[in-house]
Amino acid sequence: MTGPSIDAARLLGRIRTLGEIGRDSDGRLVRLAASDTEKLGRDQFVAWIRDAGLEVAVDRIGNIFGIWKAGGVADEAPILIGSHIDTVIGAGIYDGCYGTLSGLEVIETLKAEGLTPSRPIAVAAFTNEEGVRYAPDMMGSLVYVGGLDIDSALATIGTDGTILGRELERIGYAGEHRPGFLKPHAYIELHIEQGPVLEREGIPVGVVEDLQGISWQRVTITGDANHAGTTPISMRRDAGHAAARVVTFLRERAKASNTPTVATVGCMSFEPNAINVIPSRAIFTVDLRDPDEDRLREEEAALANFLESLSTEEQVGISAERLARFEPVKFDQSIVRLVEKAARERGLACRRMTSGAGHDAQMIARIAPSAMIFVPSAGGISHNPKEFTADEDLVAGANVLLDVVRRLATEGTPK
Amino acid sequence: MTGPSIDAARLLGRIRTLGEIGRDSDGRLVRLAASDTEKLGRDQFVAWIRDAGLEVAVDRIGNIFGIWKAGGVADEAPILIGSHIDTVIGAGIYDGCYGTLSGLEVIETLKAEGLTPSRPIAVAAFTNEEGVRYAPDMMGSLVYVGGLDIDSALATIGTDGTILGRELERIGYAGEHRPGFLKPHAYIELHIEQGPVLEREGIPVGVVEDLQGISWQRVTITGDANHAGTTPISMRRDAGHAAARVVTFLRERAKASNTPTVATVGCMSFEPNAINVIPSRAIFTVDLRDPDEDRLREEEAALANFLESLSTEEQVGISAERLARFEPVKFDQSIVRLVEKAARERGLACRRMTSGAGHDAQMIARIAPSAMIFVPSAGGISHNPKEFTADEDLVAGANVLLDVVRRLATEGTPK
Repeated sequence: MTGPSIDAARLLGRIRTLGEIGRDSDGRLVRLAASDTEKLGRDQFVAWIRDAGLEVAVDRIGNIFGIWKAGGVADEAPILIGSHIDTVIGAGIYDGCYGTLSGLEVIETLKAEGLTPSRPIAVAAFTNEEGVRYAPDMMGSLVYVGGLDIDSALATIGTDGTILGRELERIGYAGEHRPGFLKPHAYIELHIEQGPVLEREGIPVGVVEDLQGISWQRVTITGDANHAGTTPISMRRDAGHAAARVVTFLRERAKASNTPTVATVGCMSFEPNAINVIPSRAIFTVDLRDPDEDRLREEEAALANFLESLSTEEQVGISAERLARFEPVKFDQSIVRLVEKAARERGLACRRMTSGAGHDAQMIARIAPSAMIFVPSAGGISHNPKEFTADEDLVAGANVLLDVVRRLATEGTPK
Repeated sequence: MTGPSIDAARLLGRIRTLGEIGRDSDGRLVRLAASDTEKLGRDQFVAWIRDAGLEVAVDRIGNIFGIWKAGGVADEAPILIGSHIDTVIGAGIYDGCYGTLSGLEVIETLKAEGLTPSRPIAVAAFTNEEGVRYAPDMMGSLVYVGGLDIDSALATIGTDGTILGRELERIGYAGEHRPGFLKPHAYIELHIEQGPVLEREGIPVGVVEDLQGISWQRVTITGDANHAGTTPISMRRDAGHAAARVVTFLRERAKASNTPTVATVGCMSFEPNAINVIPSRAIFTVDLRDPDEDRLREEEAALANFLESLSTEEQVGISAERLARFEPVKFDQSIVRLVEKAARERGLACRRMTSGAGHDAQMIARIAPSAMIFVPSAGGISHNPKEFTADEDLVAGANVLLDVVRRLATEGTPK
């Protein structure tokens, strides 16, 4: 059986409204964690939580919660629905926001239909999921489950030299609550796929049963600044050229393998960065992902070995610093089955899949049974203004979330 | 015969004094063209010109001249000795400053010995020789010879968004004189080699008879920003990876050839420059140099062809913009012979050579017989704090310059 459905117009309207908050002069959507623009997004989300008659709670790392404490069950472990509202630079409007606003939409719908839940239901927007301004990403949920000490997290220095704790205070989102103050009975996150699989197969609902492991490193290569016109090639210690060799090595290795391993160099900078000076330093990041922990370790080892030989060949100094490391995650099979059941009952085709992206769900999975629901991303494009999911798919995904939460909130422990 | 010698202590002292002007908080020497720190260097140089009793003149592009108008010869074409005092980021203390201060030293010495020159003798510090803040490099001398329109030059926008003309006004060096107002009878420039040849061969004096051609381009590669975790390698349009392939292509080509061609990628930037986003844009510079114009054209063509095939292979957009282009230069044989003669008379071993770096002399050579004198650079290192030339070599080079200028100023037209 399926109960009532969510208010499609309200959900879609809020996604578009939030998507206009934080546009820069070029029209790019930029709501970096704890920034002025993200504060505006947070304020809007909190306003909607209050409109829905939910209790607002903010913890010390800035995670925002909207809690529906239905009569008499205030002390039960809640069903938690979450995601994030911070963005990358030049983001789309769906990543994170879709899941967060759908969580709120689901609670409002269940309230409106007069459901009597067996436990509280809460929606969460976790701080700094993207990790663009402060590393590591998924920081809010990581701190929430005790995976990162709150004080070290608040002391994190951003790419712009700011300190996260200070920024949270500045924008008014350094809350009182202890991270982890709500221990979920179950956690579920609805998200756009950010990959091409569902669209390619024409399937509207992805049932996410596991998630890739993620390895982030910052590599610094040190050579010799020298004159570009008078230094013979054979005498150069060119940090920029050595960095370029790492980029091509990673691509060639990924292309040669038939594994789902992906490697990305997203950040790169040269010093002194002058036209006629051989780079004395190159600093860049490496993002490695694989659903299999052993294979991810192999990739990390292969990179380490290459850097070692490169250091000798190019006569440069090389150091690598770990920025983030998460093992692949297996989600809760009982919730995964609930999602499949809910999709089927809505007459929606679905398939089990692996998440290629990191999500807050992988952190919360450490303290509660968790799972995720995916909807298609046009062209698999995300972290890009062209990020798009059809309204029909957005609404379908939110209704599957609604049915799963209704069941979890009435049937008790997922079996 | 050789006449008196320069005042070694005075010259070496001034080189060290000027070398301390413009240190940043990390102790790096940074006197970028028309910056606040370069103003301080200019002020010191002008003060020394006045102390020497020379007439100070500044032209519209900010070139500074110290002119000795010996009695009765004020209207004759002067012997011009020049170089520059702007620096790269993290510079050594000799590049440019050595030649400029030696020019002043030579004039003071000739005045002191009571020489009656047949024409004025002047020292010049040309604006923006390095081209780090404003492209192209050697701008002051290029404008001086009419190779670049003064108004376009003044309108140049810097890497920091500033406008050169405004900056020259701000620091008080937007002069009244028309660039080219002094047409030299002969031009000579003394400079550190910035390469390893003289040191390796144990020769104190390099007689520079020609100079490499220089080609500067800025390349912009445009791909698709996309999620680093969910985008299969096969579906990526990664501007950063394409840029890395250009860097490795240039290096492999240079290594494979047995020509003196050198290629350098000194500047590199990625956008959006985020760890978990595939770069949508990479912007970098290419510096190509070769003493042979045909070969330099071949290298430019090879790069253009590679960019074209790369654009197809990587499915990225590529555009290349020319920032500067100078053909190889042959210096004046009669002055070259004078330098050889002077070195021999001082008992100094010398050898003829090609300049690998660009110098103001290559511009002035368009309007006057010109040549250069090199002294050894330890390890061939330049554009680096480790740049070093032994005092003995600095003094020897300045004395050769002294003898060459004395002869030019007394014997008239170089034969």
